[in-house]
Amino acid sequence: MDLKTSPLARPFPEMPPIAGATLRVARARYKTWDRCDLTFVELAQGTSVAGVFTKSLCASSEVELGREAVKAGSASALIVNAGNSNAFTGWRGREAVEAIQKQVSDTLGCAITEVFVSSTGVIGVPLPIDKARAGIAAAIEAAPCGWEDAANAINTTDTFAKGAHASAMIGDIRVELCGIIKGSGMIAPDMATMLGYIFTDANVAPAFLQELLGRANAATFSCITVDGDTSTSDTVMVFATGKADHARIEGWDSPGADAFAAALNDVCRMLAQLVVRDGEGATKFITIRVSGAASDESARRVGLSIANSPLVKTAIAGEDANWGRVVMAVGKAGEPADRDRLSIAFGGVWTAKNGLPVDGYDEAPVAEHLKGQEIDITVDLGIGDGKATVWTCDLTHGYIAINADYRS
Amino acid sequence: MDLKTSPLARPFPEMPPIAGATLRVARARYKTWDRCDLTFVELAQGTSVAGVFTKSLCASSEVELGREAVKAGSASALIVNAGNSNAFTGWRGREAVEAIQKQVSDTLGCAITEVFVSSTGVIGVPLPIDKARAGIAAAIEAAPCGWEDAANAINTTDTFAKGAHASAMIGDIRVELCGIIKGSGMIAPDMATMLGYIFTDANVAPAFLQELLGRANAATFSCITVDGDTSTSDTVMVFATGKADHARIEGWDSPGADAFAAALNDVCRMLAQLVVRDGEGATKFITIRVSGAASDESARRVGLSIANSPLVKTAIAGEDANWGRVVMAVGKAGEPADRDRLSIAFGGVWTAKNGLPVDGYDEAPVAEHLKGQEIDITVDLGIGDGKATVWTCDLTHGYIAINADYRS
Repeated sequence: MDLKTSPLARPFPEMPPIAGATLRVARARYKTWDRCDLTFVELAQGTSVAGVFTKSLCASSEVELGREAVKAGSASALIVNAGNSNAFTGWRGREAVEAIQKQVSDTLGCAITEVFVSSTGVIGVPLPIDKARAGIAAAIEAAPCGWEDAANAINTTDTFAKGAHASAMIGDIRVELCGIIKGSGMIAPDMATMLGYIFTDANVAPAFLQELLGRANAATFSCITVDGDTSTSDTVMVFATGKADHARIEGWDSPGADAFAAALNDVCRMLAQLVVRDGEGATKFITIRVSGAASDESARRVGLSIANSPLVKTAIAGEDANWGRVVMAVGKAGEPADRDRLSIAFGGVWTAKNGLPVDGYDEAPVAEHLKGQEIDITVDLGIGDGKATVWTCDLTHGYIAINADYRS
Repeated sequence: MDLKTSPLARPFPEMPPIAGATLRVARARYKTWDRCDLTFVELAQGTSVAGVFTKSLCASSEVELGREAVKAGSASALIVNAGNSNAFTGWRGREAVEAIQKQVSDTLGCAITEVFVSSTGVIGVPLPIDKARAGIAAAIEAAPCGWEDAANAINTTDTFAKGAHASAMIGDIRVELCGIIKGSGMIAPDMATMLGYIFTDANVAPAFLQELLGRANAATFSCITVDGDTSTSDTVMVFATGKADHARIEGWDSPGADAFAAALNDVCRMLAQLVVRDGEGATKFITIRVSGAASDESARRVGLSIANSPLVKTAIAGEDANWGRVVMAVGKAGEPADRDRLSIAFGGVWTAKNGLPVDGYDEAPVAEHLKGQEIDITVDLGIGDGKATVWTCDLTHGYIAINADYRS
């Protein structure tokens, strides 16, 4: 099936190289396609690593091994296979990952646990070891490539290459953060069929890098949803090569810690939003702001209840300011709420306030807003100070077409 | 929009009258339609009542008042309004319900708290009191009607009238249970846009009737889902007129308690399944059996995670035995599971066992099974004795068309 580029796509940004991270791509031919589907990133000695992984209890071997190895905090290489997720393949899948780790560690002369592997694609078919081996050999021989080539090589059903860039000043030294990501369906908090990688030349201690990634994840990747489904392979990792000439960031007291944290958060948010923009069948990008909740976490849950509601998502697809469905989604979230304090706005226009439709509410500006591609929904619960923003897309015939009309 | 009858519809069954319950319908014209949209059921003095209601925190006044009044255990009348849910209408909505209760209690000479009211339809528009008043006056004048007329009068977007019947022997006395229900979208556990009413001539103490309904609800209405959305108005009630000539059933020790409980469960299960059969856009009825879970409740949650997954539902719509998506849904449920003990079957044919695809798996009989209207998915978690069965339907273009293409 030929997928058209999402109408919400963004052009691939200009992104600088990261000292200490060398990208290469190759054809492992995991599927019968003629495109690069294996990405090999070589990382300078001393690169710090942090990662967050799917909470699925049926996670792939890649996730199991990565989750464990990331604790040591050191990385030498990243391999990403596209076209086969190697998930639900038992011991045979594990053998494939271990074979890749062995080959790469032999080539680079690094520890096996410094080789991180991700795979995405069909579930239930063990990753073919011979194809992986040949692909890695080809990648090692290949000339280094740029960010967009790597972003394309990790894609599967994605319709555009996704990348984001930010900088931070650590004292007088400017550090760069470049991220690429893939993912378009099976997207929900706890991160679904989403593989994201951020590379920086900053010098950051692994434990602190992990803390920063966890915080950024909570406010970005954990606040997006396409269909509420969660993959067995989701992974977001940060690699800090330490090539920038500044004192190592060890914790919040280190100079530049706040600036680096903010830049990391920016890159994560941009990447997360790009995944929503490539949501299967998406025609509208929806921002849901929840305020007045009992806590920030409660606000996030209410936001996701709205964002995951098929009735809300189809209403937006139909350009219908159906705030009754938003009330329904608030009610089912199970979070503290009071029907008679609830207020709802579309595109900044309040349609309901304090539990009642707004008298003399003018639908014209709301109807106009809903015709656009960028939709804003604001919900105030009126009971506390908690707030959160979540992002999702509409639910359209395109989603059904991609997931039902064609055999996988 | 003209909705075609669901391809999964069932003909309305033969159902006997229930002594002590008199049905009448009338035109309140809550919408600009020419059909009966107000149902008035008069109940004999001494009728026991039990009810379960939506857990939505934005519930309608009907639900708030009904939830409270049911505790007294006694009913004289039931009024159901179709076309306007009266939800999210604040004090104005409450006034409308209280006006209906007053009018009916004046007419019948019963307590206000013995008059139960339900409303279903558009959210956010206070129920017009004048229309309700005229509708009730017309219903009181009308000749009694049969079950199918009442089942049609409570419907909104439903595409067929839904009823179920069972009998039980209490000693030598045969009692009848007749139920009607409406609901087609916004259906999820915690019961969504679902209004169900069961009438019986059995003589059952209110407290025990409530216990029996709670048990039946857990295994039936709480095990269905269409879209995971939960309405602000869901209600299932049982009215026992006590006209049958047997000793009152006070508890499990009373003769006939088990027989009555089983019959009530049967009616609830049949009604719940009919709601799924009228699921918006549904073309396939899906039964998901989960076994080997840590507990029955854990099995139910895993089953609902599968039943609510848009990716599983679209795969079934596409007649695709995509068991990888079932693995995904098991993994995201957050319930105890072990990837390497998980087994999955479609139509009784195992596609994966103990965490691996079945060697030499023959897809032909599975493909044949998926072409049918009745789909069976079996999941064995392999870690305990917990089991549950849940029911859902597929997710099709029809769902999008009903919810997005037409303005509500």
